[in-house]
Amino acid sequence: MAETFFTTVRVRYQETDQMGVVYHSNYLVWFEVGRTALIRELGLSYGGLEKKGIILPVIEANCQYKSPARFEDVVRIETSIGELSPAKIRFNYRAVRETDDKLLASGHTLHMWVNREMKPLNLKRKWPDVYEVLQEPFSAQS
Amino acid sequence: MAETFFTTVRVRYQETDQMGVVYHSNYLVWFEVGRTALIRELGLSYGGLEKKGIILPVIEANCQYKSPARFEDVVRIETSIGELSPAKIRFNYRAVRETDDKLLASGHTLHMWVNREMKPLNLKRKWPDVYEVLQEPFSAQS
Amino acid sequence: MAETFFTTVRVRYQETDQMGVVYHSNYLVWFEVGRTALIRELGLSYGGLEKKGIILPVIEANCQYKSPARFEDVVRIETSIGELSPAKIRFNYRAVRETDDKLLASGHTLHMWVNREMKPLNLKRKWPDVYEVLQEPFSAQS
Amino acid sequence: MAETFFTTVRVRYQETDQMGVVYHSNYLVWFEVGRTALIRELGLSYGGLEKKGIILPVIEANCQYKSPARFEDVVRIETSIGELSPAKIRFNYRAVRETDDKLLASGHTLHMWVNREMKPLNLKRKWPDVYEVLQEPFSAQS
Repeated sequence: MAETFFTTVRVRYQETDQMGVVYHSNYLVWFEVGRTALIRELGLSYGGLEKKGIILPVIEANCQYKSPARFEDVVRIETSIGELSPAKIRFNYRAVRETDDKLLASGHTLHMWVNREMKPLNLKRKWPDVYEVLQEPFSAQS
Repeated sequence: MAETFFTTVRVRYQETDQMGVVYHSNYLVWFEVGRTALIRELGLSYGGLEKKGIILPVIEANCQYKSPARFEDVVRIETSIGELSPAKIRFNYRAVRETDDKLLASGHTLHMWVNREMKPLNLKRKWPDVYEVLQEPFSAQS
Repeated sequence: MAETFFTTVRVRYQETDQMGVVYHSNYLVWFEVGRTALIRELGLSYGGLEKKGIILPVIEANCQYKSPARFEDVVRIETSIGELSPAKIRFNYRAVRETDDKLLASGHTLHMWVNREMKPLNLKRKWPDVYEVLQEPFSAQS
Repeated sequence: MAETFFTTVRVRYQETDQMGVVYHSNYLVWFEVGRTALIRELGLSYGGLEKKGIILPVIEANCQYKSPARFEDVVRIETSIGELSPAKIRFNYRAVRETDDKLLASGHTLHMWVNREMKPLNLKRKWPDVYEVLQEPFSAQS
């Protein structure tokens, strides 16, 4: 198991819909908040990577919805690196309500490493130091 | 093959991000535009279903990103019913740029039929007329 | 009176909130759809202006909400240029429901002309041809 | 001067646009985060008010943009009650970057007190206890 990183979001009124619950696409935004926090906690920075010319567009996103989140709920986003290769990175997520530890949704996103021209990038060869840092939580499995 | 329904969206500036392309969660919103149009073209109405107490929350969403959409692109959303049962409905989507027929993304969403209390609903038994209408494009396969 | 340009949006489920109506910040997005359409109908292009290095960030936004828009409503965005100077441009908007011509909201946005470095730009001096095109609907007053 | 309440948001990638800065309509969402926090800190709850049938739709929103917020910026939202009457409430906001106390934007929203049927509500008469709580920070002026 890779190391899991935690961050929280509080549901905004804007994120609700007329069903009275959080509109489903917002979970993908929360997943972004989760992976940004993970990268920051590793001592890297999403923005800093982009400045170096390391871009990681999403090539696949998936979400399973288990229970609805509601306005003002505090939701814990649990993020881990599910897979890391010189070409790709996969993040796994769980969205859990803080008050009762209820699982709201789980999912993953798959990203490619590309440069500013959106051409594939071999992260391990081009940025071995970044690659190594990302491997830490992933290789922390037993 | 089930019948495919078409609608278009034009990329809004708000939908772009600092990568200069459409932020990935917006495709799920476009998919919503696609299934709402499909339901409307079948002579039903999403809002009308909700008024009857037929709610269809998303229980799974998936998207594969193939090529980025950009500001002002006209994107054709192709929607079809992939699966219909008394308990669930699955919609399949393709997002295609109008000018060059480039496939931008494909995906699906899976929905449960529930009532206002969010309890599972047997659509075929409770609303046979609605079920029949939804079966038309699905059963139009050869 | 300056010439008015028309475009429509259909309310998306994502744009509703738990009050059962359109969340108020979406009107600013619709206003963006309105001014983008206006610029396009003048034979210019928002994206094209940006490629030339003509950026127009919003420096003030205002909206008066009169009546709520609801899911699937078709809303007509009426846009006109309220004020044009070498330094700034102001757009005025009205959001009107198509089916009953009910005024939903009105507002304006004020924008500065800046270059890619976000420095103020004298549009009339630097891009006289663009300035002239923008003056047409504004000066079409009687 | 009315008492000011503080809360922070961290800029999400989703909130940026292709200009590389936060898209302007998001400030209205942050203002919502600010007034929700204010209400919560007063010991009330936005959701709780709605359950009582006290709804406060926005009838006017205004924002002056001073300096752009960027991805991952921590933004402090400073919120105060600018005006309170039995019929209406006005909130004032300032968005300030935490790291350098730079003012990013300021604005206000005006809200009407209505019931579930969206009919005007005399808050002071119908819910004197709620009215009194809201008056505290407002009347804390010297």
